Amino acid sequence: MDAITVIRAKRDGHALTPGQIDWVIDAYTRGRVADEQMSALAMAILLNGMDRAEIARWTAAMIASGERMDFSALPRPTVDKHSTGGVGDKITLPLAPLVAACGAAVPQLSGRGLGHTGGTLDKLESVPGWRAGLSGPEMMEVLGSAGAVICAAGEGLAPADRKLYALRDVTGTVESIPLIASSIMSKKIAEGTGALVLDVKVGSGAFMKTLADARELAATMVELGTDHGVRTVALLTDMSVPLGLTAGNALEVRESVEVLAGGGPADVVELTLALAREMLDAAGLPDADPERALRGGGAMDVWRRMIAAQGGDPDAPLPVARERHTLPAPASGVLTRLDAYAVGVAAWRLGAGRARKEDPVQAGAGVELHARPGERVTAGQPLLTLHTDTPERFPAALAALADDAVVIVPDGPGEPGPGAAPALAPLVLDRVA
Amino acid sequence: MDAITVIRAKRDGHALTPGQIDWVIDAYTRGRVADEQMSALAMAILLNGMDRAEIARWTAAMIASGERMDFSALPRPTVDKHSTGGVGDKITLPLAPLVAACGAAVPQLSGRGLGHTGGTLDKLESVPGWRAGLSGPEMMEVLGSAGAVICAAGEGLAPADRKLYALRDVTGTVESIPLIASSIMSKKIAEGTGALVLDVKVGSGAFMKTLADARELAATMVELGTDHGVRTVALLTDMSVPLGLTAGNALEVRESVEVLAGGGPADVVELTLALAREMLDAAGLPDADPERALRGGGAMDVWRRMIAAQGGDPDAPLPVARERHTLPAPASGVLTRLDAYAVGVAAWRLGAGRARKEDPVQAGAGVELHARPGERVTAGQPLLTLHTDTPERFPAALAALADDAVVIVPDGPGEPGPGAAPALAPLVLDRVA
Repeated sequence: MDAITVIRAKRDGHALTPGQIDWVIDAYTRGRVADEQMSALAMAILLNGMDRAEIARWTAAMIASGERMDFSALPRPTVDKHSTGGVGDKITLPLAPLVAACGAAVPQLSGRGLGHTGGTLDKLESVPGWRAGLSGPEMMEVLGSAGAVICAAGEGLAPADRKLYALRDVTGTVESIPLIASSIMSKKIAEGTGALVLDVKVGSGAFMKTLADARELAATMVELGTDHGVRTVALLTDMSVPLGLTAGNALEVRESVEVLAGGGPADVVELTLALAREMLDAAGLPDADPERALRGGGAMDVWRRMIAAQGGDPDAPLPVARERHTLPAPASGVLTRLDAYAVGVAAWRLGAGRARKEDPVQAGAGVELHARPGERVTAGQPLLTLHTDTPERFPAALAALADDAVVIVPDGPGEPGPGAAPALAPLVLDRVA
Repeated sequence: MDAITVIRAKRDGHALTPGQIDWVIDAYTRGRVADEQMSALAMAILLNGMDRAEIARWTAAMIASGERMDFSALPRPTVDKHSTGGVGDKITLPLAPLVAACGAAVPQLSGRGLGHTGGTLDKLESVPGWRAGLSGPEMMEVLGSAGAVICAAGEGLAPADRKLYALRDVTGTVESIPLIASSIMSKKIAEGTGALVLDVKVGSGAFMKTLADARELAATMVELGTDHGVRTVALLTDMSVPLGLTAGNALEVRESVEVLAGGGPADVVELTLALAREMLDAAGLPDADPERALRGGGAMDVWRRMIAAQGGDPDAPLPVARERHTLPAPASGVLTRLDAYAVGVAAWRLGAGRARKEDPVQAGAGVELHARPGERVTAGQPLLTLHTDTPERFPAALAALADDAVVIVPDGPGEPGPGAAPALAPLVLDRVA
């Protein structure tokens, strides 16, 4: 077997054989297939696709490249959630403690942001003292004591995916449904969760721009999970508008704590509860009442224990950016559009995200929204506030928000009324199980 | 500008802009675009193509990546020939001295073999003392004194192509007409020849398997040459059968010397003369008589001067392989098929070629044919002789020649007669100018 034969097979439109897939993943993990060979193969996969059998084998080979975790000794059922990434998507922060408060164990291996989408670990690192890196035994201890743990995946989990993910990121080979599905599911299956709920984002701020693509990705992942004995369900949710009123690191932690305290933006609460119900169902706890756990403070208790168990101080003030710049509404009327991608890019450029893996992020940077689509605004009122430690970044962030990122439909006398505004998409668009 | 934007543009089916092409070639040459990024781009180009304007710009950018040679000080017109590579293709060896004997200057930059096709420099290196690496002034001196020079291209000539060629070789991205055409033509244009004749091979032993692909490659190269002021003509020639009766290094030199001495296989003589006429026409010497120069010894005189000027001894005995193995004809009848690719692979496995760039080749290794398609053979007579210094390679070479590599149609009583043999393809299939 050699790399060129495997590359040529996919390049020429053939399905890869199980033997070819096992060999190329193993050889790549060991460094016998070079990065430049794997990137050519990834491009051929992106352009020529893989069928279901190939995706299943590719995923299994990536799982087999490393170790697998085992939570079967825990007294509670395990359930995890994965989001394909969006703007303002802080849902993991209130959700993991909430589901734990309802009786499940939530081992949440999370990642860092890259590009315009934020990363859960970057957000939590804005909590003073909190640390993302735990050993296996430490992770089990936090999971046992708090019921939920959010941490970085260990080096030994699906190392083939770790290497391939970093390669795809720099070679224009990210946007492939077979490669995305196998990347996510290899990590989640190796992690050893008993059940999994997927939040597949659709819209301008997501990697999947169309419902059809999102549905295909969801179906592929649900099938992979089910085949490996993981109860897997996917919700397709809207990402044309940012989630909640903040996009950034400390800004999103603050909003998450508001939700845990029983407040917070309606859409964040709605999606947190919808995903909690799916997770509890998948964990075999259909009678749990997440709404009560949220309102009654049980979720907040888990949050505090979880943060403290990972070295964080849940009572410490969160970092605040040194500089702010507020954009006023340019007209009176109904805000009909506030584009998720534009807000995500603005937050990224302000310092909330990173251009390269090794870049640091600013804890306080990001974008704060003062109105959401569907709401009426008055000319001159604050519409968005930009936060950063490095004010020389304001122009680049403002450029991202120019053009048609923000649309206000006037409703003054003689103008079309609020009825003229387009209907907003529902938050949960579909369910795949 | 960044690599990912360029890769994505081609991946998504767009034409690359002149600015993108100039940037990516320059950045790759300087090491700012990584090999894994260029291989992803090469695969996207292979699968999504490039239009004529992109190919022209890509070629120009590769020329601009290095230095250009200049032969305008020579008193004779310069003309060069390039073959896209075949089995037993030793034509350069008699051709360059022959064209020089007719009054043109032939600055022939050649390469080494890779895979099943041989390399001109490997062949000449079997001449004791001969060396391929010349400085620019040395090359001019040989060209001035002998009229022809065959040597390796200097490091400074189209360095972008040098790097990309090595990368394509290990990433399954060789078989792309835009990449092949731009690779060949960037070197030939940078070399500074005034005219160029291309021998585009078609058939099992060639990279182009169909006449349509070969015609497209030829047309692309002729246009590139013409656009850069190089008079360029292409012949499409058959490569379903090896050229001549030998495939190997010293074996092919011996056969070339026979041609220069006025003998040699008819097909080698025919193609040498056809290409010589095209080269002399393109050089503005339409009245030259290459047939006379061949028969009269003028070409042999140039050969001896050229070999000696590069350190070689034209009278020294050529190396001979330590071991031989002869295959007898398995039946009596007409030899209707002797597959070029199979013979090329057999010679390669015997040690005439290399699997990796850094491998050595055996001077004496190769395959000798005792009959050519269209000829009658008798069961048990020698059909092929395999030559190698390492007899453990015989089985691999024999395996390459199994199956339907050799076909003999019996012509005994009650069997179909010679008329049943398929008509042989003519050697020169088409001309593109």
